[in-house]
Amino acid sequence: MSASNRFDLVDAYWRAANYLAAGQIYLLDNPLLREPLTPAHIKPRLLGHWGTTPGLNFVYAHLNRVIRERDQDVLFVTGPGHGGPALLANTWLEGSYGDNYPEVPRDEHGMRTLFRQFSFPGGVPSHVAPDVPGSIHEGGELGYSLAHAFGAAFDNPDLLVACVVGDGEAETGPLAASWHGAKFLDPVRDGAVLPILHLNGYKIANPTLLARIPHDELDALLRGYGYVPSYVEGDDPAEMHARMAEVLDGVLDDLHHIKTSRARPKWPMIVLRSPKGWTGPSEVDGVPVEGTWRSHQVPLAGVRDNPEHLRLLEQWLRSYRPEELFDDQGRPRPEILELAPRGDKRMGATPHANGGLLLRELRLPGVRPYSVEVAKHGTTSSEPTRALGRMLREVFTLNAEQRDFRLFGPDETASNRLDAVFEATGKQWQIGTEPTDEHLTADGRVVEVLSEHLCQGMLEGYLLTGRHGLFNCYEAFTHIVDSMFNQHAKWLGTHRKLPWRRPVASLNYLLSSHVWRQDHNGFSHQDPGFIDHVMNKKAEVVRVYLPPDTNTLLSVADHCLRSRDHVNVIVSGKNLTPDWLGPEEAALHCARGAGIWEWAGTDDGDPDVVLACAGDAPTMEVMAATALLREHVPDLRVRVVNVVDLMRLQPETEHPHGMPDREFDALFTPDKPVIFAYHGYPWLIHRLTYRRTNHDNIHVRGYKEVGTTTTPFDMLVLNDMDRYRLVIDVVDRVPGLGPRAALLRQHMQDQRTRHHTYIREHGEDLPEIRDWTWPY
Amino acid sequence: MSASNRFDLVDAYWRAANYLAAGQIYLLDNPLLREPLTPAHIKPRLLGHWGTTPGLNFVYAHLNRVIRERDQDVLFVTGPGHGGPALLANTWLEGSYGDNYPEVPRDEHGMRTLFRQFSFPGGVPSHVAPDVPGSIHEGGELGYSLAHAFGAAFDNPDLLVACVVGDGEAETGPLAASWHGAKFLDPVRDGAVLPILHLNGYKIANPTLLARIPHDELDALLRGYGYVPSYVEGDDPAEMHARMAEVLDGVLDDLHHIKTSRARPKWPMIVLRSPKGWTGPSEVDGVPVEGTWRSHQVPLAGVRDNPEHLRLLEQWLRSYRPEELFDDQGRPRPEILELAPRGDKRMGATPHANGGLLLRELRLPGVRPYSVEVAKHGTTSSEPTRALGRMLREVFTLNAEQRDFRLFGPDETASNRLDAVFEATGKQWQIGTEPTDEHLTADGRVVEVLSEHLCQGMLEGYLLTGRHGLFNCYEAFTHIVDSMFNQHAKWLGTHRKLPWRRPVASLNYLLSSHVWRQDHNGFSHQDPGFIDHVMNKKAEVVRVYLPPDTNTLLSVADHCLRSRDHVNVIVSGKNLTPDWLGPEEAALHCARGAGIWEWAGTDDGDPDVVLACAGDAPTMEVMAATALLREHVPDLRVRVVNVVDLMRLQPETEHPHGMPDREFDALFTPDKPVIFAYHGYPWLIHRLTYRRTNHDNIHVRGYKEVGTTTTPFDMLVLNDMDRYRLVIDVVDRVPGLGPRAALLRQHMQDQRTRHHTYIREHGEDLPEIRDWTWPY
Repeated sequence: MSASNRFDLVDAYWRAANYLAAGQIYLLDNPLLREPLTPAHIKPRLLGHWGTTPGLNFVYAHLNRVIRERDQDVLFVTGPGHGGPALLANTWLEGSYGDNYPEVPRDEHGMRTLFRQFSFPGGVPSHVAPDVPGSIHEGGELGYSLAHAFGAAFDNPDLLVACVVGDGEAETGPLAASWHGAKFLDPVRDGAVLPILHLNGYKIANPTLLARIPHDELDALLRGYGYVPSYVEGDDPAEMHARMAEVLDGVLDDLHHIKTSRARPKWPMIVLRSPKGWTGPSEVDGVPVEGTWRSHQVPLAGVRDNPEHLRLLEQWLRSYRPEELFDDQGRPRPEILELAPRGDKRMGATPHANGGLLLRELRLPGVRPYSVEVAKHGTTSSEPTRALGRMLREVFTLNAEQRDFRLFGPDETASNRLDAVFEATGKQWQIGTEPTDEHLTADGRVVEVLSEHLCQGMLEGYLLTGRHGLFNCYEAFTHIVDSMFNQHAKWLGTHRKLPWRRPVASLNYLLSSHVWRQDHNGFSHQDPGFIDHVMNKKAEVVRVYLPPDTNTLLSVADHCLRSRDHVNVIVSGKNLTPDWLGPEEAALHCARGAGIWEWAGTDDGDPDVVLACAGDAPTMEVMAATALLREHVPDLRVRVVNVVDLMRLQPETEHPHGMPDREFDALFTPDKPVIFAYHGYPWLIHRLTYRRTNHDNIHVRGYKEVGTTTTPFDMLVLNDMDRYRLVIDVVDRVPGLGPRAALLRQHMQDQRTRHHTYIREHGEDLPEIRDWTWPY
Repeated sequence: MSASNRFDLVDAYWRAANYLAAGQIYLLDNPLLREPLTPAHIKPRLLGHWGTTPGLNFVYAHLNRVIRERDQDVLFVTGPGHGGPALLANTWLEGSYGDNYPEVPRDEHGMRTLFRQFSFPGGVPSHVAPDVPGSIHEGGELGYSLAHAFGAAFDNPDLLVACVVGDGEAETGPLAASWHGAKFLDPVRDGAVLPILHLNGYKIANPTLLARIPHDELDALLRGYGYVPSYVEGDDPAEMHARMAEVLDGVLDDLHHIKTSRARPKWPMIVLRSPKGWTGPSEVDGVPVEGTWRSHQVPLAGVRDNPEHLRLLEQWLRSYRPEELFDDQGRPRPEILELAPRGDKRMGATPHANGGLLLRELRLPGVRPYSVEVAKHGTTSSEPTRALGRMLREVFTLNAEQRDFRLFGPDETASNRLDAVFEATGKQWQIGTEPTDEHLTADGRVVEVLSEHLCQGMLEGYLLTGRHGLFNCYEAFTHIVDSMFNQHAKWLGTHRKLPWRRPVASLNYLLSSHVWRQDHNGFSHQDPGFIDHVMNKKAEVVRVYLPPDTNTLLSVADHCLRSRDHVNVIVSGKNLTPDWLGPEEAALHCARGAGIWEWAGTDDGDPDVVLACAGDAPTMEVMAATALLREHVPDLRVRVVNVVDLMRLQPETEHPHGMPDREFDALFTPDKPVIFAYHGYPWLIHRLTYRRTNHDNIHVRGYKEVGTTTTPFDMLVLNDMDRYRLVIDVVDRVPGLGPRAALLRQHMQDQRTRHHTYIREHGEDLPEIRDWTWPY
């Protein structure tokens, strides 16, 4: 067809999408404007966002053309916050919406439903959410679109991820850093990301920075980020269509060239500068609206009560000439649909956006080859994360061909002692290398960048497109992605309720370099609160594991790598840790999630006191306290309970892993004192157990926000979780110890003082602490 | 003096700082190398970071020169994570360290103490922390240096903030966005920020992105950010000194020109490319160390056990020729100290870094002119944040001259209905404007940028340099700065313990657009968890307020704006809210923090049930439930308790605001059922009250992570916190209601269903909900 025809079709498609988007914001009824608009046709509450919509529709329509012409797989990522109307309109038009929601078919009835459900109670939100087909990216919180796009492109060599970045979003930190993602993308093994920076000039009430800096500054910035920008700027639809088509063809040609060459590419990108609220009312009540921040939400706000507004709305809607776009039954006319791709090529139907469809089982080596032999409990030591690194190395090897596993970290993979993975794969890196560099390769599947936001965002994009992965991070700094975690957990919560969304691999965190081992970092690096943060999200989504040693870590990690639709948080130290459990014991203990360590205790089923622990440092102290109690109060019946799966502590009504009361009572007794040494902030244990029979007897030790640069044992003393303090806690709570109590308390107190003094004099822990092993 | 002499002095000063930094990492004793090094002189645990240190020392020494020559006030911000050794060395050298720590004087004894305390139990951390004089920026978590620098420069027209940005830090999102800070800085009314991007090439184990991209790309990026970069690149000290001096003189001249011209400036910046671990051991054990990632921490790791390492260390230390730098008593030689500025001009002594020294009382108008008259409780309505906006307008006016109050927000000031402030000041903005823009001015004291990170970081910088401010933010998205809040709270926790640090104004958050009012945003915008996050930090630092109406919000805000050294979190809706309390009642109620609303209840001091509430939406529902109970069970004695200051719920042993048990029992009774409607996640109330007598009877309703796009009342129904549900809760818990109980329960259930159905049909709440007022 001729160029002019081409743009006519694109324009018609664009008008159809614009009409459908505006209709969603305003219309309760009369979707085809069969009769003149009356207030009764208008929604009582006008909620929605018009501003970004026409630009998104413009990009979508043009992408449709190139998808059809080039048979290209494209995943569309909608960065602008409230692009819901646009994506709902387009997926309805192309039919992918109706495929998943048969109750919203492509006819007048369906159009009415589409309009009515939008921003309506029980309906769909104004931003792109999990219920929008073709999406892997929530348009609520801003900043993560480009990171998601890079994550989606990794190991998808034939995929083009078209990512519209809003100029509001572009002001956020995570987005500003995400441009660098292209420095990791391998043109051979990975797909391409095409950023489309959409400058519509305004946020909610302010101009945007990138829309207002001079052209040469913007151009330098984007080139500085490593891109070659092409500009599509204007407001005349005909000119803009021609320009966009020309640019898009050029960009697709460039990408084709990049995919076939091997030099570090300069990736193309597009800058689309178009009016905010383009094609909407240009002026309302005497003030300009189109092209200003006033278009952000609802350009005409008083439609129900203000006849002039109603008239303007009707005029606006009719300006799209709906009668040319939809037939008498409200179906998009076949000639319009000529532009839409077919089947899975429709951006709303790409399986990449419903990653569970593409998900393959991760090939796992099992834990046995990496586990440590434990001839006698607690007498040997190993570094848990180092063993995990060896297991992950094998995961990389086994999945080298299917290339669907990645490890992300903010320059901490080696620091967290996972560096065995570099025997199987490299750190992905496309820019210059030096002879002293290690493990940098163009096609590596470890991504290290000093941005927790990027690590998290890229992993999310990778998982939601049907792959597997792990994010390793210093515990304290995981808080940097608190809000991203929130959004991902919310996404999964909604995703799980949508029957057409297939399960995806869980998002796995390994928090290492944790609060108890910040010997040379100190207070700023001491924060175990990510667990608390995670606990607020839906119980069906979140899981927290605190493996106490190497074999339990392996077992937990193996489990997490197999799981689906969860967020798994694993907290594990990297330092030498006693091997408490052999491989089989560890597997059994982790399957149970919590259990009595009979070999450690002296209770014979009827304890005087329960010493409970969750986390590696607390387990060590509880074991040492148990040993001290055996020595000093040999007739005391001590039970040791270790908790790996924190969710087990909750009632079964609160969490699927929750323990029934009977089981909880069997572990923790209904009435005996429980001294609970916990990895994080103590009150979390109270939160989880406050409904239990024995709650009043549970005394929790943990991190109480006292920290500094000091030795591991001193940290325990400062936070009252050291072995001596735990013994004192027992002595204080178990009745009937007689005069031994006071003596033992004094002796323990003396030990604490002695250690504290030694540490401050010598700068390290006493050898009896450093070399301590379980003596029984 | 001649150029050569000038650089000799700078070089000597630099060597002295390098010597002192290396000494800190290694030496337990023999600080002046009076005798050959032996293992006994070496610390048992070598913890510290050499890599970034010499570059920082280089910058510090050169800044000293220009400070002396130009009598310039300079605040030094140390971006690189572990710059502790450098700043400790420099402040000790110039004497500002000893001013604050007389036990670490400038002599051999002091030098030994300086060395020994570093990264030593009970000593000082390896990053710049509050205990380092001259610092407002913790070097633990990365990404915020430049935002802090801009915050410090606002309204400090004579100040130059020299901000060293590490190339690791430069990969973070917040830092990547912070470059744009210069687009707000007013050359006339604000100070200058001089970014010094320090490319030493490596993070912990990886090269950095910015050090490895081609020069033209880096240059374009920095120009794109709006700067004119000057480059100081190399490894030969003599050449580098000359180049740095030339560049620095040029930059200072440029800044002087900018301050006196009025066009939008192109701000200068410096790129310093120097080897990581510069002047340290170039090769160890046959592998290169200087100039590689191996210099990141301790270049020679085996000094105590490896005689070759010991030899290399001694050779390295002696290479600085300490005998030329320090006299026989370990005092820096006077000719060295010639370079150091005097008095407050020393960067370690600038009062800007100990902002409390400069802090003036904020001039406050009092709440009375902005409060609403309440002739009858709960019968009129107002928008709380709108009233606060009027009060803040006056704060801006009253402090227009002293210019020490600012409002920060991510483009939400108007959305949060604080826009009255624009009658007194503008939104600061130095780049292009259009006729349709509103309130943009070059010298405005409202900063709006769509980056919560920037808002938080700039406010922190502003506060720590002795000014006042408020950050207004959507509640859900405050989680974006969780980790920044952590670090600021930790900073304040440490700062409060340092006698020489003067109190600063509190960091005030106003969380509006909260979880209960996201009518057109939905699930992604619904998250009240920031309060939970805040609760983990030190009790002496954090405060949380939930004012239920306009007058209480004003009272709380007035209190927070007067407070010092805290983080205050205020959660308040922006929508029409019943005016429960008159101005005097509100002031009294807020002073108490929690209290019985006698006028609302029917208990006459002896209730059958307590209805408690915290937050505006919960208060509304509790009041409506109380009214329903009056109507349906007139003989039931209901007590209404409202909690404004959440910390009051804790035991007095846990928080300075905590209530004694007796007082708690007096409010909540020792044994009656308590139905507690709470703004956020319900279990927080359990956490705060689990030690109270009546805890087992406290039944909490709150947000249970059920959200969607719907009406305000539907949100309450979905989360079981609506008035009808609260009545059912009462009926279920108060014994002796007889057959009325079942009837009322059924009636309430019918009401819930009726509302839910209506909402889903009509898209809005029933008028009886929208227009409800307190009928008694």
